[in-house]
Amino acid sequence: MDLDWDGITHVTKVDPAKPLPPTLDVLAGTDLVIVGGSDDVTERNTIETIDALEDAFPSLPVLQEPYDSDHVSSETIDAVDGVAVPAVYNGNREHFVGKHVDLFTEVGRKPDEILGTSIPLVGNRITSKAVDAIGDLTEKLVGEGYVVQHLDSAAADVSGVEERYTPDQVAGAALATEAFYGFPVFYVEYSGTYGGPEDVEAAARYLEETTLVYGGGIDSRAKAQEILEAGADAIVVGDCFHDDPETFRETIPR
Amino acid sequence: MDLDWDGITHVTKVDPAKPLPPTLDVLAGTDLVIVGGSDDVTERNTIETIDALEDAFPSLPVLQEPYDSDHVSSETIDAVDGVAVPAVYNGNREHFVGKHVDLFTEVGRKPDEILGTSIPLVGNRITSKAVDAIGDLTEKLVGEGYVVQHLDSAAADVSGVEERYTPDQVAGAALATEAFYGFPVFYVEYSGTYGGPEDVEAAARYLEETTLVYGGGIDSRAKAQEILEAGADAIVVGDCFHDDPETFRETIPR
Repeated sequence: MDLDWDGITHVTKVDPAKPLPPTLDVLAGTDLVIVGGSDDVTERNTIETIDALEDAFPSLPVLQEPYDSDHVSSETIDAVDGVAVPAVYNGNREHFVGKHVDLFTEVGRKPDEILGTSIPLVGNRITSKAVDAIGDLTEKLVGEGYVVQHLDSAAADVSGVEERYTPDQVAGAALATEAFYGFPVFYVEYSGTYGGPEDVEAAARYLEETTLVYGGGIDSRAKAQEILEAGADAIVVGDCFHDDPETFRETIPR
Repeated sequence: MDLDWDGITHVTKVDPAKPLPPTLDVLAGTDLVIVGGSDDVTERNTIETIDALEDAFPSLPVLQEPYDSDHVSSETIDAVDGVAVPAVYNGNREHFVGKHVDLFTEVGRKPDEILGTSIPLVGNRITSKAVDAIGDLTEKLVGEGYVVQHLDSAAADVSGVEERYTPDQVAGAALATEAFYGFPVFYVEYSGTYGGPEDVEAAARYLEETTLVYGGGIDSRAKAQEILEAGADAIVVGDCFHDDPETFRETIPR
């Protein structure tokens, strides 16, 4: 997809299973919303969340980051600007390549089921129509090269992460992203805790085309600045959006 | 690197440990040479092979596909148009992502050792010079998404391949390459045996930007044509180049 990452500095992570703040006005100044979460997330509350965001800020780009294929449908795909799919460098094989090939195999095998039944599949037009629809879906995919650095997190648990990468290894994964795998995004994920600037500094040395994103524990202007000054292109702020809108607003660069 | 895959239909795989045919004239009409092999290959015989090719056909592009980091040096990197690095979809984690991150971590950590000692590393210029040199190296990398389909082959053995992909899975891996990992090449490898057109047909449906390459057991004009008609952009011919130059010449499309 053609999201213009150059203009994105502040990203808000919205969990569809958590209540939204009293007003969405706090989102003024954020550049992108990522919708996704694990516990209690459904396709239905994902759609409701996307609709609420769309009503409040019609031009704010929205990515879905699904934790489960049940969270995705042709309706969610149509509603968002992109579907973010992580590949976890320091996880198990399944979460870097296994599930991905399974997904694409399913997409190729049963495009009608994956994409809803609205696609007219009649006679000889099956193949070309289905392949076109797959093209539409895959154009919305945003690959994210991930390192998950907080071992005591749901993200580490589900993706089989048993060891943190050293800063040298984070730099290696960043260079692999830039030079080999070609994901548009490299994501340093400290999910739920603040990791400081060291990994971001290590990764930033090698990233030119790739957007460097950091998420985890940003709950003040000082932390937001520290990570951006270390070389992150964008910070992701999640928890305090739901819990503490005033603190959340502090993390948006002026 | 900027290899023009559009013009490449016939690729010759040359093993530096095997004797070259009496004359290299048989290469007239091939579009690219890949130099690489496992047993008895050294950096020295790799260089000698590249030099012999360069003398005979100065404008023929040459890729090195190293099986071991001992086969690579700043001299080999300088001598070739690109360094092909496979990522094996149906192998183990190490051969899709593990060794790759290790390589890039080493490159980032010790650029002088990886790239030879000729880089002037003096004072504050270390960082920028080294990062530039890494850029030069990484620009030569050609990522190849591989499926290894002959279980009784050295390629399957070293990359931990225990099961063949079905044609549906080959199509899924092809779609993953096109839409997610972004390797410029998708390679169906039957190394040492002829796999027929089925996997190539399955993969070709989903590949537009990615170059589809087939290798394995092509030893006649009929097999070469069958694979190209099934949708391969290029065929790789190896064994008979060394063993039977007349048969090799038959595989080159007129």
